[in-house]
Amino acid sequence: MTDLPIPSVTTGPLPASTKVFKPGVLHPDLRVPMREIALHPSAGEPAVTVYDSSGPYTAEGAQILIEQGLPRLRAPWLAARADTEAYEGRHVQPADNGFVSADRLTPEYPTRHRPLRAQGGRAVSQIAYARAGIITPEMEFVAIRENLGRAAMRERMARDGESFGAAVPDFVTPEFVRNEVARGRAVIPANINHPELEPMAIGRNFLVKINANIGNSAVTSSMAEEVEKMVWAIRWGADTVMDLSTGRNIHNIREWIIRNSPVPIGTVPIYQALEKVGGIAEDLTWEIFRDTLIEQAEQGVDYFTIHAGVRLRHIPLTVDRVTGIVSRGGSIMAKWCLHHHRESFLYEHFEEICQIARAYDVAFSLGDGLRPGSIADANDAAQFAELETLGELTRIAWRHDCQVMIEGPGHVPMHKIKENMDKQLEICGEAPFYTLGPLTTDIAPGYDHITSGIGAAMIGWFGTAMLCYVTPKEHLGLPDRDDVKTGVITYKIAAHAADLAKGHPAARLRDDALSRARFEFRWEDQFNLSLDPDTARSFHDQTLPKEAHKLAHFCSMCGPKFCSMKISQDIRDEARAQAGMSDMAAKYREGGDLYMPMPEDAPAS
Amino acid sequence: MTDLPIPSVTTGPLPASTKVFKPGVLHPDLRVPMREIALHPSAGEPAVTVYDSSGPYTAEGAQILIEQGLPRLRAPWLAARADTEAYEGRHVQPADNGFVSADRLTPEYPTRHRPLRAQGGRAVSQIAYARAGIITPEMEFVAIRENLGRAAMRERMARDGESFGAAVPDFVTPEFVRNEVARGRAVIPANINHPELEPMAIGRNFLVKINANIGNSAVTSSMAEEVEKMVWAIRWGADTVMDLSTGRNIHNIREWIIRNSPVPIGTVPIYQALEKVGGIAEDLTWEIFRDTLIEQAEQGVDYFTIHAGVRLRHIPLTVDRVTGIVSRGGSIMAKWCLHHHRESFLYEHFEEICQIARAYDVAFSLGDGLRPGSIADANDAAQFAELETLGELTRIAWRHDCQVMIEGPGHVPMHKIKENMDKQLEICGEAPFYTLGPLTTDIAPGYDHITSGIGAAMIGWFGTAMLCYVTPKEHLGLPDRDDVKTGVITYKIAAHAADLAKGHPAARLRDDALSRARFEFRWEDQFNLSLDPDTARSFHDQTLPKEAHKLAHFCSMCGPKFCSMKISQDIRDEARAQAGMSDMAAKYREGGDLYMPMPEDAPAS
Repeated sequence: MTDLPIPSVTTGPLPASTKVFKPGVLHPDLRVPMREIALHPSAGEPAVTVYDSSGPYTAEGAQILIEQGLPRLRAPWLAARADTEAYEGRHVQPADNGFVSADRLTPEYPTRHRPLRAQGGRAVSQIAYARAGIITPEMEFVAIRENLGRAAMRERMARDGESFGAAVPDFVTPEFVRNEVARGRAVIPANINHPELEPMAIGRNFLVKINANIGNSAVTSSMAEEVEKMVWAIRWGADTVMDLSTGRNIHNIREWIIRNSPVPIGTVPIYQALEKVGGIAEDLTWEIFRDTLIEQAEQGVDYFTIHAGVRLRHIPLTVDRVTGIVSRGGSIMAKWCLHHHRESFLYEHFEEICQIARAYDVAFSLGDGLRPGSIADANDAAQFAELETLGELTRIAWRHDCQVMIEGPGHVPMHKIKENMDKQLEICGEAPFYTLGPLTTDIAPGYDHITSGIGAAMIGWFGTAMLCYVTPKEHLGLPDRDDVKTGVITYKIAAHAADLAKGHPAARLRDDALSRARFEFRWEDQFNLSLDPDTARSFHDQTLPKEAHKLAHFCSMCGPKFCSMKISQDIRDEARAQAGMSDMAAKYREGGDLYMPMPEDAPAS
Repeated sequence: MTDLPIPSVTTGPLPASTKVFKPGVLHPDLRVPMREIALHPSAGEPAVTVYDSSGPYTAEGAQILIEQGLPRLRAPWLAARADTEAYEGRHVQPADNGFVSADRLTPEYPTRHRPLRAQGGRAVSQIAYARAGIITPEMEFVAIRENLGRAAMRERMARDGESFGAAVPDFVTPEFVRNEVARGRAVIPANINHPELEPMAIGRNFLVKINANIGNSAVTSSMAEEVEKMVWAIRWGADTVMDLSTGRNIHNIREWIIRNSPVPIGTVPIYQALEKVGGIAEDLTWEIFRDTLIEQAEQGVDYFTIHAGVRLRHIPLTVDRVTGIVSRGGSIMAKWCLHHHRESFLYEHFEEICQIARAYDVAFSLGDGLRPGSIADANDAAQFAELETLGELTRIAWRHDCQVMIEGPGHVPMHKIKENMDKQLEICGEAPFYTLGPLTTDIAPGYDHITSGIGAAMIGWFGTAMLCYVTPKEHLGLPDRDDVKTGVITYKIAAHAADLAKGHPAARLRDDALSRARFEFRWEDQFNLSLDPDTARSFHDQTLPKEAHKLAHFCSMCGPKFCSMKISQDIRDEARAQAGMSDMAAKYREGGDLYMPMPEDAPAS
């Protein structure tokens, strides 16, 4: 499992797409990336602007050398705040890479930057600045990024949707972002040691985001594969990436990923801590865990999943479950608690964990270690008991100026999904919810991107801020590159369906543009506006390969004679030609009637 | 495009599955098929019984000769009713096969049975019998078929779900079926000329059903492919199949399909009628359409999609739509109406259409010719104006003792889905709703099985009785065999998720059995209980190919050390070992607290 010295990653623009940058106002040096999809001249429409999480990799003629890493665009912003200090930091130890043998060691990242931390124990978190009334460059970056098409939209259409009490504004101002972060309703995961980051927000009043999980395991995969998986996942729209590696080389692989990631990177530190104690849960200690947090904070991890909600008292509630505890972190902590018969060290030391997080601005993703692993266990006593604890921990984290989001299930039948959202909002004071699916049935292994995509779309509509993807390999194996893409596209669908249903003012622009292209047989535009232009095109070409058919006013489903779109266009022309037709339309809308003289041979019906 | 004289189709049981038959009580000769999935002895559980729509093809050692057709099991039931007469019937004309040239003609079906029709204009429909208080063999067949595991279930668990006013019983009796059919709340599509049919019901108070569309087009595909597509679709769970052929050979291909189909076959007769007039919508006449209805009724088509709701007055309402009219049938009729500037001949002659339908028991699927083709057009004036007309036609059909279901959209954002269901129930007097998806966004061509699977699961939960599948090729091309399977599995997921959420008393049996298998690392059981055992197994084997791993107490996601299920089982054993642990659990549930003595070094949190 040795790595190429310089692995290559996927680069280049998506079809008909150009990466454009918008400047800031408060911070004129900002260059906020967006993707413009050009339409065929016959459309007579402007290019469609879409959210772009893919980073420099999709720029025209991108020159990517992953051993150099991405530009450190946040460095000047951090320097300007003058509240951090560079220090020598922790040095890599054999344990950090799981005591891997030299011949299997992933090479250390070529360049090492001295880590930053807050000066004198102060909080350098976005929530601390927000509460102090400061609009950071990160906040303005987010405001501009979230505003795609909103201005245009306002003239175009009235708001249409059901947001269940969310407060999605017509236009996102930097002040709105600051206020949402200050209230804890949004997080901007942005470790001060991840200056390569293009800031994004996770919150109910912003676009619904999606996370893609990558990571090697004891069983398989290498650094080169993981870096490419990250680049591949963001190419298709992943907003954050979690590195869930559990095998050897965890430290070194993570460094290669972070230095090349324009999106926030999340981890579950307990996984690495467990490797450090040879995989024996009982041997975990607070000291080893604490050391792991600092190790990862110095590398630039943007959010930590912390399973501090799994308390000794909760464990008996899982004994009679069909699938017990299915969260890895949760089961590790449960085993530790039960073995020592004492309270979780994560729960006991949570305030110290907050002290570390605020010094680097690592956001918390409070893990739902007791999430249901089957329909039978959904919304049970164990799950909701833990949620109460997560609410308590949320308030502690906020007291320490830490950013917090809450992880959610899991496996939940449709009729129990909304209860999860409502309880989370109430118990956790509107901290952003971050759910895994949920899967709406257990009977389709191999298709759990779909069983969970259904639940994800619904809970996203109800208010979940970020959806953690599920791939077709869930429950069965490790996702490969194709699985990652399928998972990401499925979750982009769920997130977008949620934005539409919530009535996000800009969401429908893309649907309408694609539908107009469809109605006007602009096949190329239809492909280019889709979430996956390559697949759309290849499916079309399987039946009608010829270039000429890209201009055809029909497709393979019906052929020319049966094309409803074609007939419908004739109808429109004919209808418009017929005098007074549109006046009639108006009459009908008012419920007016029209007597149609019948030939004698036609019986009344 | 010549066909093999004897094309072969896919046969053989699914893994670990046996086809079993249950007898009737009122009609002891009934043999109602079900599939039993055997579990590993270590499970200590009985086989899991699941609904089986796959017909004789999945029986052990099935001998299928498609030129002979399936056994005509309903023939004695029909004879016993003694209310029909065999007659010479219509003979095939060149127009019926679209004037195809001899060299491209699909061979006629080898055997011809004289068609049956009702004696002396009486109604031989299931609804007529139901209203007369007669419980037909078809009704008892359905009752037994729908009862999978219900008896067992009643002891097992309380009902859990939200059914939005549906009346799903704990146990389905033949009388319950009769009553639902009599009230028009369920249909049993069962043409008297389709005696090969294994009866099934479509209704809100039964299991949610799915339909798969097949059919050749002007552009491609042959009889052999279409018969195999039908067999393939029901193998994976399609409850009905619609033949949407639009090219040549329509009559002959349909005959091959019906003679070999154990599930109801639906068609859109206007497609064939249009072929008969060379594809010129304006040239359609009532006489040609009427002749086509009789042609298809004599062949045994079980339900007709009739677009009689598209009235001249509705057309202007579509003029300002983003995607106009996207229903093929709807656009054909709209063009006819507009060209002649007169009312639809389907609407005018609807009572005569009822006369034909009641004489063969062809059920109606009243087409939504004005369904929205984009998010922008959802729930608009045109769609709901047509729905009002469909309500009017439903009452007319019921007056004539015809069975009716109503077709629904289409493209609908999540927040507008329930309004469709509620209006349909109210306007159409609870006649079964049969929807296409709906697609919840327009931006994912290539993935519209997923964009629509989301909407299908939701509207199925709200009360839709049958979900018409959408394949990955929707909007792009003609589905091939793989697309058909993907569409069917996706819709089985949606239908099952809906049954779970409605609180169907037997739905959860399979989820729970699979989840127990998952928790106990019974990999083979997990594969065999899934909707697609082949895919589940192959995904698992991609990472852990060895047979030994089928017994492994871990999988490739985490490896042995990290397996939450493994740890969770240890926890369970340990917890049970620790005295009084479950009593403690009880205490916690009552909100009791437990003081945990802390060592001095542990700070209070």
